[in-house]
Amino acid sequence: MSDPRETGLVLDPKYDAAGLITAVATDRVTGDVLMLAHMNAEALALTVETGVAHFWSRSRAALWKKGETSGHVLQVRDMRIDCDQDAVWLIVDPAGPACHTGARSCFYRRIEGDRLALAE
Amino acid sequence: MSDPRETGLVLDPKYDAAGLITAVATDRVTGDVLMLAHMNAEALALTVETGVAHFWSRSRAALWKKGETSGHVLQVRDMRIDCDQDAVWLIVDPAGPACHTGARSCFYRRIEGDRLALAE
Repeated sequence: MSDPRETGLVLDPKYDAAGLITAVATDRVTGDVLMLAHMNAEALALTVETGVAHFWSRSRAALWKKGETSGHVLQVRDMRIDCDQDAVWLIVDPAGPACHTGARSCFYRRIEGDRLALAE
Repeated sequence: MSDPRETGLVLDPKYDAAGLITAVATDRVTGDVLMLAHMNAEALALTVETGVAHFWSRSRAALWKKGETSGHVLQVRDMRIDCDQDAVWLIVDPAGPACHTGARSCFYRRIEGDRLALAE
């Protein structure tokens, strides 16, 4: 009863109703999670082809080469897919802050009960 | 023009239409991404309260204490939220394999073009 999507060696992403999978990027050196975003098939293909992270911007409904305007691209050093192929993990070298706020990582706040604290 | 959700220190998750945010768990020791899942408000609150990861299972439409049957719980050592508060990052000590396949991480395959290769 093995599922080829889970056990096989063919890339077969399970896109959601909006045609997207989730992507999480971690820093190759620090291991920190830098950002979480989404990819459609085109963004995934461009990321694989170019080695530079591309996403789908849900707010702008447009293909999004991360860092296209800021220069803060994410160079993809390794790329994994999860068991049910609805999420990818990018191990990256970032050319600058990953967050649009200017923070190195989007995850700059720690959860402490119902409050947040700056993490760095 | 600052957005209190981005700059503030109050936990104010931005749930999607299904009442969910995305959660990514990384191994405290290795830094590896172990799994990606979703949380509703109850799962988030239980995770904060108990220090053990809880999720919302979209397939079963039920609250899911990770490891409840297998014993492979995720002890949460640190918990971050991202800029727009629609994703959380759990830094965890896993009590066993995080993946239902028995793999340590759900991300056990590397993407190589349109093929996959076992990553470990």
